[in-house]
Amino acid sequence: MNGKVYLVGAGPGDPELLTVKALRLLQTADVVLHDDLVSAEILKLVASAAQVQNVGKRCGTKTMRQEEINFLLVALADSGRQVVRLKSGDPLIFGRAGEEIEALRRSNIAYEIVPGVTCALGAAAAAGIPLTYRRISSTLVLTVGHRAAGNSDAEWGKFSATESTLLVYMPGHDYAEMADRLTAAGFAKETLCAIISRATTPRQQIHHTTISNLHRSPELAAPTLLVVGEVVKFADHAAGQPEKTFPVMESAFAATRVQSAISSERLRQEERLA
Amino acid sequence: MNGKVYLVGAGPGDPELLTVKALRLLQTADVVLHDDLVSAEILKLVASAAQVQNVGKRCGTKTMRQEEINFLLVALADSGRQVVRLKSGDPLIFGRAGEEIEALRRSNIAYEIVPGVTCALGAAAAAGIPLTYRRISSTLVLTVGHRAAGNSDAEWGKFSATESTLLVYMPGHDYAEMADRLTAAGFAKETLCAIISRATTPRQQIHHTTISNLHRSPELAAPTLLVVGEVVKFADHAAGQPEKTFPVMESAFAATRVQSAISSERLRQEERLA
Repeated sequence: MNGKVYLVGAGPGDPELLTVKALRLLQTADVVLHDDLVSAEILKLVASAAQVQNVGKRCGTKTMRQEEINFLLVALADSGRQVVRLKSGDPLIFGRAGEEIEALRRSNIAYEIVPGVTCALGAAAAAGIPLTYRRISSTLVLTVGHRAAGNSDAEWGKFSATESTLLVYMPGHDYAEMADRLTAAGFAKETLCAIISRATTPRQQIHHTTISNLHRSPELAAPTLLVVGEVVKFADHAAGQPEKTFPVMESAFAATRVQSAISSERLRQEERLA
Repeated sequence: MNGKVYLVGAGPGDPELLTVKALRLLQTADVVLHDDLVSAEILKLVASAAQVQNVGKRCGTKTMRQEEINFLLVALADSGRQVVRLKSGDPLIFGRAGEEIEALRRSNIAYEIVPGVTCALGAAAAAGIPLTYRRISSTLVLTVGHRAAGNSDAEWGKFSATESTLLVYMPGHDYAEMADRLTAAGFAKETLCAIISRATTPRQQIHHTTISNLHRSPELAAPTLLVVGEVVKFADHAAGQPEKTFPVMESAFAATRVQSAISSERLRQEERLA
């Protein structure tokens, strides 16, 4: 069998928010190379025979350089392996998938991109914030907090439009500096904000504030996401931890059991009619 | 049992891009109220005993007014039903979930938001376009094409930043007008664009062009998505239809079969060690 690389989104955290396709690939892969933010609960779903390696970075210390990851992807697929490159959220958003795709194309390695639920959507769902709303927000801006990513504050100024919602990935803990950047970009000090930590997991935390009070926010555990905009007023302030997390395998079992019961019933009906 | 409403994302089209949670809810719901864009392949996965109703709009003609949908959601949950409100993509993006959430809160109806793979991510994965890329794009702007949504062209001007990618949902077929709006907003005429139709389905089509040639584009079938920005140069021009679509139930079965084999093997090992 020819090797192939699947660039797969792991979703925001809850294993049940994996796509059915991601789950299938995790269970049939020979090798899984994952980012640091992918949870242990999700990694438990990988086939036990598979080789699993963390190639992510923790607190800025890279376990492996990007060139090494690219090399590994090519080498493993070239030797016939089915490789899952598992990234938190969606692979095409702030995941450096572009560089990996280029390396795979240069080496003529078959690959496929499997989209996932991006973290901003997990966070918004957790906090009950409708990201678009008639006459309030018709545009979403997804950007990244840390300056290393290369986005300049000059750019941010363009996104302080009234009819939009700003979603900041990896906002960091220097909330005073973040507030300065937002006001310098033109956002009003009274603009509502929500910081959402570990969205869709049992350790989820949500903090509501405004830009002027942002500096007083608690340092919530990573991964966090910052939502800025008028739609935050619609947030569900009762939202806390998810009611319960559903075991993903039990869930997939339930789904298939129901389906097979339906199929057999239909078969019986068809036999009766025949 | 108390009734509850689940606002569920159906993903971009491929049934295998449903989340495991969405699949479970479709199989256990009493009622499914879905938008028009949700595919027949996905609706086939709904439990056969469930009541299924299309409450979407087609070509601007609404099957049901928003107030009627809100009323139905409240009434069904209030009578003890488990209701899935199924929306294409993610429920919180251009899906008017905000109004439904407000109605549910006002009536004290339990609800939960289940995020999904938003259509822009399905489209980008299909076309092989990395949406963020170091030093090229660190910001994504998700907006909607049709003017009824209330976003003014003045707003668009703010999003013609160089280091960002613009994703237009429902861009419509008046590509000449779209090109005028983009250039009026400050985008260079040579900016690359991709129109992606029915992403992640067997009928997927991708058209590559520039803003100046946008008016010559074919009228691809809805749903379409327009990507504008420098990252489009990284697109996989060989991308066409997906290699094959995988039957979602077979996929969930495969996943659970493998997992149960692993569990029994572990159990045997534990028994041997005990």
